Amino acid sequence: MPQLQTSSMYPLNPSFAKEVERSFARQPIMNLIGASLSLVEPGVVEITLPYRADLAQQDGYLHAGIVTTIADSACGYAAYSLMPAGSRVLSVEFKVNLLRPAQGETFVARAEVIKAGKTLTFVSADVWGVGDDAQKTLVATMQATMICLRNNSK
Amino acid sequence: MPQLQTSSMYPLNPSFAKEVERSFARQPIMNLIGASLSLVEPGVVEITLPYRADLAQQDGYLHAGIVTTIADSACGYAAYSLMPAGSRVLSVEFKVNLLRPAQGETFVARAEVIKAGKTLTFVSADVWGVGDDAQKTLVATMQATMICLRNNSK
Amino acid sequence: MPQLQTSSMYPLNPSFAKEVERSFARQPIMNLIGASLSLVEPGVVEITLPYRADLAQQDGYLHAGIVTTIADSACGYAAYSLMPAGSRVLSVEFKVNLLRPAQGETFVARAEVIKAGKTLTFVSADVWGVGDDAQKTLVATMQATMICLRNNSK
Amino acid sequence: MPQLQTSSMYPLNPSFAKEVERSFARQPIMNLIGASLSLVEPGVVEITLPYRADLAQQDGYLHAGIVTTIADSACGYAAYSLMPAGSRVLSVEFKVNLLRPAQGETFVARAEVIKAGKTLTFVSADVWGVGDDAQKTLVATMQATMICLRNNSK
Repeated sequence: MPQLQTSSMYPLNPSFAKEVERSFARQPIMNLIGASLSLVEPGVVEITLPYRADLAQQDGYLHAGIVTTIADSACGYAAYSLMPAGSRVLSVEFKVNLLRPAQGETFVARAEVIKAGKTLTFVSADVWGVGDDAQKTLVATMQATMICLRNNSK
Repeated sequence: MPQLQTSSMYPLNPSFAKEVERSFARQPIMNLIGASLSLVEPGVVEITLPYRADLAQQDGYLHAGIVTTIADSACGYAAYSLMPAGSRVLSVEFKVNLLRPAQGETFVARAEVIKAGKTLTFVSADVWGVGDDAQKTLVATMQATMICLRNNSK
Repeated sequence: MPQLQTSSMYPLNPSFAKEVERSFARQPIMNLIGASLSLVEPGVVEITLPYRADLAQQDGYLHAGIVTTIADSACGYAAYSLMPAGSRVLSVEFKVNLLRPAQGETFVARAEVIKAGKTLTFVSADVWGVGDDAQKTLVATMQATMICLRNNSK
Repeated sequence: MPQLQTSSMYPLNPSFAKEVERSFARQPIMNLIGASLSLVEPGVVEITLPYRADLAQQDGYLHAGIVTTIADSACGYAAYSLMPAGSRVLSVEFKVNLLRPAQGETFVARAEVIKAGKTLTFVSADVWGVGDDAQKTLVATMQATMICLRNNSK
């Protein structure tokens, strides 16, 4: 995709990185599958997941739902990194295109905020399979809408 | 959604149910999260997942990626149930709308084929949270495109 | 799709039908393509479009963008019919699956609200091609998120 | 979005540009709304549409369906530019995120193939509103799956 508009990618919450890490640590599913935060910048988050056989579908590829799990969390935290202190973030919707069978020793989901709004934030993510030769292959893309909750209402 | 067109919902593979069960049993991720097949009919598949705290996101709700995991497998197997013997099925894309926080004691993903084609099959799924009072709440919907592979080419 | 949850499908604005008609009349694009409102009920709107050769793509089928145009307006007004007086509605996102070439003498987009929220409303639409024998064929589905604006902020 | 994989972006059909132009000229809808092809390269197509009041929705913005119309054709032709001679292209599905009200004197939809396959091609598009000061604003994104038909079967 061409030029991103990143003009508004400054964090409203000075401790955004700590907040993202704190929230990530409270997602038990990340621990179950073995995912970790590998990058937190304003509007950009990466999550890394080593391949494990128990995360696979019937052909041995990473299950599309697990591809989605790391992409969704990356998108959510990319959005969250730009929200004011005291916010909560929830996924409204996402679409995933699965470009190739999810093969790799490790998977990296990289999410970037395309447009941050007061209520809704639009985020795009790519998920890469990384081989033992460090070769990266794009396996999936996600486009997600995230909502910022201040009063617990959706 | 109104009237579905289900005219072509007859199985080409007489042992479709056994095939779906066999393939499901070979998805290690289903075992990891504790999901099971609860219904297999021509063009319709349900997967049931009891809530577990280690499948949650930061607020204790089922993670959207796990909601997606059961919806995607249900869609894939609903499509697969109508494919000829010897086929393989892969997800091309899906979109998920997350209507409410995924709360429940159990979750049921019910997928129905909307249109089965020779190459592409379009499937729709609903994911319900079921409370201890057996009350069902719609928490997410998925619309997915599945591809039938006969010659390993996508 | 199975059972809809329509419990909250009562109109907050008693003159919702008049409001939808008034707004529809102010969409010049509907006039350009020849579309008309054919049903307005709380949470349900239908738009009808007779086929015209100047709305086609290169093979003579109705262009997917025009299929989308009537589906999007139907979804928007289905959502709008449940919003309080003084609201404005905007599309946040939609996904369209194009199940068959869009053939027909007339096309009908029928939208139904799946979940109405204070800020976001989730709507699903089917688009049918209707032949000269009145036979209906499902050509596309849309799932859309609509936002209710009260203070002009998105 | 980060690094695209464009390794396979060479045209199989040496007269791809002429083919795209020829097919575009046979899309009557493009003429109706006043859209024109502004760029045709292997895997990349741009369509330009001057604003007209009769293309608007109720607030005077370009209707989301018309935003989609130019994005879909741009995606289709970007995919088509990489297909072998004698192919036909059809849209399988697309998702559109509407980031801002579609304001501008002119709109440009720029589509780029992300992954070209033998059967399915995945394309991403951005739609920009261009003001009288030539300032570009991203108003929408599309992610689309296109299918290559050689035997008229979908």
